[in-house]
Amino acid sequence: MTDLAHDRTRELAGFLAELRYAHIPQDVVERCQAYYLDWLGSALAGKNHAPIPLFEQYSQLMGPSDGGCQQLTDRRMTSPHFAALVNAAASHVVEQDDLHNSSVLHPATVVFPAALATAQDLGSSGRDLITAAVAGYEAGIRIGEFLGRSHYRVFHTTGTAGTLAAAVAAGKLMELDTDGFVNLLGNAGTQAAGLWEFLRDAADSKQLHTAKAASDGILAAYMTQSGLTGARHILEGPQGMAAGMSTDADPSRLTDRLGERWALTETSFKFHASCRHTHPAADALLALMQREALTHDAIETVTARVHQAAIDVLGPVVDPRTIHQAKFSMGSVLGLIAVHGDASLASFRDQALQDEAVASFRQRVSMVLDPEVDEAYPRRWLGRVEVTTRDGRRLSAAIDEPKGDPGNTLSRDELEAKFRRLVIFSGAASDDEVVRLIAHAWNLPSVARLEPLL
Amino acid sequence: MTDLAHDRTRELAGFLAELRYAHIPQDVVERCQAYYLDWLGSALAGKNHAPIPLFEQYSQLMGPSDGGCQQLTDRRMTSPHFAALVNAAASHVVEQDDLHNSSVLHPATVVFPAALATAQDLGSSGRDLITAAVAGYEAGIRIGEFLGRSHYRVFHTTGTAGTLAAAVAAGKLMELDTDGFVNLLGNAGTQAAGLWEFLRDAADSKQLHTAKAASDGILAAYMTQSGLTGARHILEGPQGMAAGMSTDADPSRLTDRLGERWALTETSFKFHASCRHTHPAADALLALMQREALTHDAIETVTARVHQAAIDVLGPVVDPRTIHQAKFSMGSVLGLIAVHGDASLASFRDQALQDEAVASFRQRVSMVLDPEVDEAYPRRWLGRVEVTTRDGRRLSAAIDEPKGDPGNTLSRDELEAKFRRLVIFSGAASDDEVVRLIAHAWNLPSVARLEPLL
Repeated sequence: MTDLAHDRTRELAGFLAELRYAHIPQDVVERCQAYYLDWLGSALAGKNHAPIPLFEQYSQLMGPSDGGCQQLTDRRMTSPHFAALVNAAASHVVEQDDLHNSSVLHPATVVFPAALATAQDLGSSGRDLITAAVAGYEAGIRIGEFLGRSHYRVFHTTGTAGTLAAAVAAGKLMELDTDGFVNLLGNAGTQAAGLWEFLRDAADSKQLHTAKAASDGILAAYMTQSGLTGARHILEGPQGMAAGMSTDADPSRLTDRLGERWALTETSFKFHASCRHTHPAADALLALMQREALTHDAIETVTARVHQAAIDVLGPVVDPRTIHQAKFSMGSVLGLIAVHGDASLASFRDQALQDEAVASFRQRVSMVLDPEVDEAYPRRWLGRVEVTTRDGRRLSAAIDEPKGDPGNTLSRDELEAKFRRLVIFSGAASDDEVVRLIAHAWNLPSVARLEPLL
Repeated sequence: MTDLAHDRTRELAGFLAELRYAHIPQDVVERCQAYYLDWLGSALAGKNHAPIPLFEQYSQLMGPSDGGCQQLTDRRMTSPHFAALVNAAASHVVEQDDLHNSSVLHPATVVFPAALATAQDLGSSGRDLITAAVAGYEAGIRIGEFLGRSHYRVFHTTGTAGTLAAAVAAGKLMELDTDGFVNLLGNAGTQAAGLWEFLRDAADSKQLHTAKAASDGILAAYMTQSGLTGARHILEGPQGMAAGMSTDADPSRLTDRLGERWALTETSFKFHASCRHTHPAADALLALMQREALTHDAIETVTARVHQAAIDVLGPVVDPRTIHQAKFSMGSVLGLIAVHGDASLASFRDQALQDEAVASFRQRVSMVLDPEVDEAYPRRWLGRVEVTTRDGRRLSAAIDEPKGDPGNTLSRDELEAKFRRLVIFSGAASDDEVVRLIAHAWNLPSVARLEPLL
């Protein structure tokens, strides 16, 4: 499978063990705080959103009724295992959490639930939390890139690589050494799971995957700290993750420019409240409609020229029946953009399934594989649309960096506005609390000890 | 991948939903009780055995300190999630738990922890427990057979298929209907995990896999009951388990003679305290030495002619350094058989690593692939050994059914004796309790309500 003489797992583990807050460049720290605020918004937005109450209920049935860790949606205090479980489920349900392009990993929704729960349990500082989150992002992104496109075709990378990312974040707060991180990766990797099969049935597994990634990561970290040993080459060994779950794994990605490349900063904020695979086409269509001053009823057809993974993930959704499924329907997303000008949480709730103009537009959208777009993916997510108009014109538009990508990122003001929108959507916090949470995120490096946030 | 028009997952779910105690033949009920007693012995034998205390510790850190479910090793009462976690870890550590040949699944160690915890939580009867266990065995075995040899080459089937087996047992106690079982399989299958990579490092993952299979099965069952939906074709769908984790999956196995073939009764009891892949050769060597009245020092070399999976699992263990690793060393197992006449728990503890004669014998053992043995596997586990003696003879022996296989099974007396040996080994129960537990297992159909056993 690979050259085990060059022990890349150990090299990655050594980087994670040696990482210190002082090593992390200031702009990386600040981006990490921005992802943290963005994650808090996503987690709070999940309050009362199906199926999140089922996770709260499971926590109540199976977990302790006290502890130092807080479930953000229902404010219940419990143990790290269940706080991570609930917060990771909650932060992935409205499809507004961040995404790293080339790994196709949603880092925040698995890293922060594990990191925050562990930090609250151990009484860690804000700087410790940032260092742990950076470790989780850097490891998880490289593992996602390592597992490759063949893995993502069947496996939900945020469930699989996400288990290791969450474990690394929790393990960093425990100050594991190199051997500790080697064992930790083994213990997390052998639990890694999550299949895309649920998508075509609009089943609830996407949140189950993140919930399990975070709580399995907690289990891996706490049990590694207490002495549980794991495989030394769970990633690249002959009976490891790549051997079982990938046909194009690239071991060199595991250690790609450790300490020089800060992969965390390549992570995109999600602007539209839909599957990230719809964003490039959504932005291209928006640009085309603005450029040509078109309205939705002037458009006859839209062809979104996409990468293969978009077809794999969105293709099965032909007749969306739930709001969550509509977020995975290219036609529904482009319909909301065309008819209402945005694909926000409120638009999905109020228009995605009810609005006849959106439904009609959906029928006029198709996807085709574009070799250039596919070639660039997953490093770059190119948006290409072709439109025919009712008056017989053929138009096209291209965008090379969707809104929220590192080169087209959200400002602090835009992030705060998004945070407010998310919290207002669910009503999970009061206005005062919103102000306090925003200040908390921007002041994170000064926080001496992570306490319950609400 | 497969013909989804013939919905085999739904057919299996329908069988599970409709199964009643009254449908189960009396001999199947009695075999189920025997597996239950055998499982109780394995679970109790795990007391204080590394790494089981680490699971007890995790339960204490993360779980509630009361509840209706009992961890057998430390007698702690907790929630179903953690009782299942600890009991499943404990019952797989001394390598004495049952095994089903053609699925290469250890059913008891995942099915009974989930079933007993759920039964104690819900106050179910002994007959309910038996019905649930039968459901778990029948489903888990067929899913293991479905996933096939290619799956087992990289994945620990007891971790993967075991998650579904555990979920089915728990779900049966909740009286799920057909739709419920379809969702349950989806929720369990998307969590299925467990890689063999740990073997070459003698790491602790084998018990982590069973612990997680049982507790993930509990999660799948309780959350399905409360409404969490899962993929409808997690087994055979285009982004399901077989698509991601097998290259030789056979969907027809999922529904093989449901209600006519009772696959549970094909399950083997383990006689030797080692990996089951060593048993056929161990029995053949024992037969040869008895037939020829040979002692270990008369033997120059032993060649075990084995199936490929034995080479995959045992091959990496070239220099066993722990007792657990010695159980996966063909040389160590045959050495104990040759020098001490048995490969029991006590022999492993006292002789496997310390005894020079065993170490010397180990060096004289090799494995080769035998096409006939491999062809019969996994349906039949044939034992074939070739021996050269110091006085220059070449001898061979063959056994077609290792001790403990259905055609060469253990009697109730032998099972009780094994149970006593296991409990004495760990000291997990008093003599009085041993008598009571044996009576409990044989009287299980009369138990009105499952209470804590100790």
